[in-house]
Amino acid sequence: MRTSIATVCLSGALVDKLHACAAAGFDGVEVFEPDLVASDHSPEEIRALADRLGLGLDLYQPFRDLEGVDDALFADNLRRAEQKFALMNRFGIDTMLLCSNVATATIDSDELFAAQLRELGDLAERYDVRIAYEALAWGRYVADYRRSWDVVRLADHPRVGLCLDSFHILSRGHDPAAIADIPGERIFFLQLADAPTMTMDLLSWSRHHRLFPGEGSFDLARFLDLVLATGYDGPVSLEVFNDVFRQTDPGRTALHARRSLTWLEDRTAHRSPALGLRLLPPAAPPSGVDFVEVKAEDTTDVEVLLEQLGFDFGGRHRSKPVRLWSQGEARVVVNEQGARGQLPHLAALGFGVADADAAADRAAVLRAPRVARRTYRSELTLTAVAAPDGTEVFFCPTSADWVSEFEEGTPAAGESLVTRVDHVNLAQPWDDFDEAVLFYASTLGLVADAGTEVAGPRGLVRSQVMRTEDCCVRLPLNVAPVSEEGLLPQHVAFACTDVVALAERARAAGLVSLPVPANYYDDLMARFDLDPALLARLRELDLLYDRDAHGELLHFYTPTVAGVFFEALERRGDYAGYGAPNAPVRLAAQQRSTPQTLP
Amino acid sequence: MRTSIATVCLSGALVDKLHACAAAGFDGVEVFEPDLVASDHSPEEIRALADRLGLGLDLYQPFRDLEGVDDALFADNLRRAEQKFALMNRFGIDTMLLCSNVATATIDSDELFAAQLRELGDLAERYDVRIAYEALAWGRYVADYRRSWDVVRLADHPRVGLCLDSFHILSRGHDPAAIADIPGERIFFLQLADAPTMTMDLLSWSRHHRLFPGEGSFDLARFLDLVLATGYDGPVSLEVFNDVFRQTDPGRTALHARRSLTWLEDRTAHRSPALGLRLLPPAAPPSGVDFVEVKAEDTTDVEVLLEQLGFDFGGRHRSKPVRLWSQGEARVVVNEQGARGQLPHLAALGFGVADADAAADRAAVLRAPRVARRTYRSELTLTAVAAPDGTEVFFCPTSADWVSEFEEGTPAAGESLVTRVDHVNLAQPWDDFDEAVLFYASTLGLVADAGTEVAGPRGLVRSQVMRTEDCCVRLPLNVAPVSEEGLLPQHVAFACTDVVALAERARAAGLVSLPVPANYYDDLMARFDLDPALLARLRELDLLYDRDAHGELLHFYTPTVAGVFFEALERRGDYAGYGAPNAPVRLAAQQRSTPQTLP
Repeated sequence: MRTSIATVCLSGALVDKLHACAAAGFDGVEVFEPDLVASDHSPEEIRALADRLGLGLDLYQPFRDLEGVDDALFADNLRRAEQKFALMNRFGIDTMLLCSNVATATIDSDELFAAQLRELGDLAERYDVRIAYEALAWGRYVADYRRSWDVVRLADHPRVGLCLDSFHILSRGHDPAAIADIPGERIFFLQLADAPTMTMDLLSWSRHHRLFPGEGSFDLARFLDLVLATGYDGPVSLEVFNDVFRQTDPGRTALHARRSLTWLEDRTAHRSPALGLRLLPPAAPPSGVDFVEVKAEDTTDVEVLLEQLGFDFGGRHRSKPVRLWSQGEARVVVNEQGARGQLPHLAALGFGVADADAAADRAAVLRAPRVARRTYRSELTLTAVAAPDGTEVFFCPTSADWVSEFEEGTPAAGESLVTRVDHVNLAQPWDDFDEAVLFYASTLGLVADAGTEVAGPRGLVRSQVMRTEDCCVRLPLNVAPVSEEGLLPQHVAFACTDVVALAERARAAGLVSLPVPANYYDDLMARFDLDPALLARLRELDLLYDRDAHGELLHFYTPTVAGVFFEALERRGDYAGYGAPNAPVRLAAQQRSTPQTLP
Repeated sequence: MRTSIATVCLSGALVDKLHACAAAGFDGVEVFEPDLVASDHSPEEIRALADRLGLGLDLYQPFRDLEGVDDALFADNLRRAEQKFALMNRFGIDTMLLCSNVATATIDSDELFAAQLRELGDLAERYDVRIAYEALAWGRYVADYRRSWDVVRLADHPRVGLCLDSFHILSRGHDPAAIADIPGERIFFLQLADAPTMTMDLLSWSRHHRLFPGEGSFDLARFLDLVLATGYDGPVSLEVFNDVFRQTDPGRTALHARRSLTWLEDRTAHRSPALGLRLLPPAAPPSGVDFVEVKAEDTTDVEVLLEQLGFDFGGRHRSKPVRLWSQGEARVVVNEQGARGQLPHLAALGFGVADADAAADRAAVLRAPRVARRTYRSELTLTAVAAPDGTEVFFCPTSADWVSEFEEGTPAAGESLVTRVDHVNLAQPWDDFDEAVLFYASTLGLVADAGTEVAGPRGLVRSQVMRTEDCCVRLPLNVAPVSEEGLLPQHVAFACTDVVALAERARAAGLVSLPVPANYYDDLMARFDLDPALLARLRELDLLYDRDAHGELLHFYTPTVAGVFFEALERRGDYAGYGAPNAPVRLAAQQRSTPQTLP
């Protein structure tokens, strides 16, 4: 599968974009005309650079507003086109994208459109180039790929074919099934973009909210399957623009973009093995969170919290300034190695996997950056990759016993009330959010729940849960508004068998959990008509409560230590959520308690 | 007119919000329930604080999902409501907002809605409170204010009335004319919000894009006129939330909000003098830009540019480290007073006004912060206020001669080609943008053109022109994406009679204007089929070109000095724009030339 990407997807100057695309492993690019016009490099220079980088120049785009006009205007349009054909010859680009007329069309006639495209085809013939005609979703008359295909068929010119773009087709809710009726050799180009489900005017949606495959709601595997099944073997190209990518480092966006195509190729290969597409090394979804690691120059305050929550002190690692705390299947590693000046933050997550080598191979093909950690020969080597926000993701073979590398621990006094890590809440910088969705979906095979928004005192917090089908791993990703304070606190939620008992024990051990205002309990009473004894207990222990159709949630929070805090929770019945209605109360309480950090 | 605002409009904790609203001069607030629930202050404390601040607690909101349900659910809903009524008694709040049912209504019957509201009214009677029923734009069955009025009329209960909200009515395109048929005493509350014209799902539009009156596209003066004409004399309250306000200092947002109501009251007073509303001190729109001021510790580099552009050196101010440069009616003041460590930036704008005192009075009523500048007694005192981004706005009496305070100047050699300031392009931090629109609209009486977006190498630049009707003053406001670099360059565009001659003269004087890439001229040729001699001239002088249906624009840019640069332009015929198609080319060239600053 030949991969390509439009230069409009990336920020920066045209030559920077070419370098970024080549480094990310794309086979080619679409040259976006405004990028060329604003560039101080000549077409010949660009061509030579692309040659050196091994990058094809697959498309020149866009040419606008050609067809459906009167003779005088059409003559001027042909003149415009001829200048672009000459330019394409300087580049050595053989295909030009023609968008259906948005602005100047006045005559609604397939016959006229076809006749004018045929004339353009004759001109293209003289320059040895060809035309890929695309129905824009907001085209004046041609806004449906089925109609653009009618026009191309009617034009019946070897230099005139179709460009299909998933956004323009799926954003209008058009059924892509009719693609199957188009001969593959009449499709000259394929552009892909994903998008979130939303209702807004198509132009704004397109301009601000396109996403790479795997980040939105479109069924792009089916779409790609349909196109490749026609016999189309040209570039599979990304045309995605939104407010994030335009501000992000182009090298990083290009890698991210390339990963989305690798993921999509795998999904499509699973759907239709006969297409001969490349499969990713298979990786079963993780069986759970094996450990979380908190890193800081001084982890004492975090360890005090863990002790108060009843964790066993598992001792010190035999070769590193790293200590282990555990309770039930929940393990927290605190790491002071190479952490000078760092405040406590969530630095790594270990996921239990059946085959760590396969998981690492898969991550490598997806170009997830490998993380190196020095170890002694006698010790277990765990493979890790970096998530977009820098969190290290370890693949832990379920058979491996790294715990025995820790020495001289002391078990806690009481019984283990915590059973496991229920979820890890990863606050994301706003420009990492979509990339993180794709990262966890592709490398770990997590699925995305529908996104939500939670109101905090400093703005709306966008939230999206990534999880395994069986909920053994749950990672709510949150994006909060930009702040001057920097650190976005992340948190680990521990599942326990009896959160009331745990809260009492922790309090006896000195924990002052996050205070919950009295008004909250008054409102709880109004909402749920709780048993007064339960309400009194909740109030006394600063416990939060939620209920859905399937069960109940009781939970509390520890204070925040710089960039990390903990939650203990008990799910009663089949409560499936995360206490989202309580998030504004928690965020406001945190703002009061630790105004130096940020919800 | 009693003014009020919902606490949801502001960021921060509930008590901070109350202080901010009182300081901004509001008469009352709507208490937003989640703000209370998250607060660690009791209702009694809030009530006492509001009393001390002289702030009325005008509304408790929202209560949701009451009507259109079966008996069992309705009984629980009444129980919920009763707890809230008891809470309102603790607050001393007499009105509760009831939103039309979104989530739980299953029976679509006006009779049932009315019967259930009547029963709620009986309960409200016992607590001496009343219900303001609002049709949410996305209500399950009741989504139109005319239907909510039908229901209230049918309920026929003295404790049950209407809440009207401009957003819910105008966002659906409902004609507000039928408000005239509602008796004023049946309207229990009025909420106002403006919004930009856009097509998206109503909930997202409402949640992310509401604006204060004067910043969007709704005709709120007509709306308010209709409501007040019914005899309604309750609070005129703002309920506005969007992604900006939630992150901004609450004191600042409250002032901004209060200004929007002052402006709206004036507009409505002009419409219907009989309502007895308060008029603003009248102020004729400015007759032109009298001067612009560039401030820095060292203004030398800016002065070199002005000299190269052929400006006369007007000399030094007789008492301050301030110098004047002028050409035609364009005047640039460079100011090194109190500027230690400051890089060159646009610090002030002077507008010619017929009556400076009236303009200052108007700005004072609008609570624009007054700016103080020390002067000697013998010198002219100009009044100034601060725009939202800190730019100082001076009101310059057209009769005043401040120019004569400058001494020992030397006129330039050649003829004056520059005639006046054509426009001043004010880059705005993203969170100042809407506030700036209201500021210039209300204090200077400027009107807003439709907004546009321009693609730059670092993201889309949102742009909106504020201008006088006669275009004597034009201020394009731009908001560019957030960057680490800080300074957003602003620029002053000088109109001239012959930009080709000016460019030649400036080049002879040593100006190296912003280089324009060759690709731009190739594209210009393709687009406009220009006379080759003209094209050669443009190319030689790095001139940019644009054309619309009414005329042509030729223009060039100086290099950027820290936060400021200049443009020289010639409008041929009635060209009305600002060369927007050239902006991406300019932004990319600036990025190449001065990568340390930001487009």
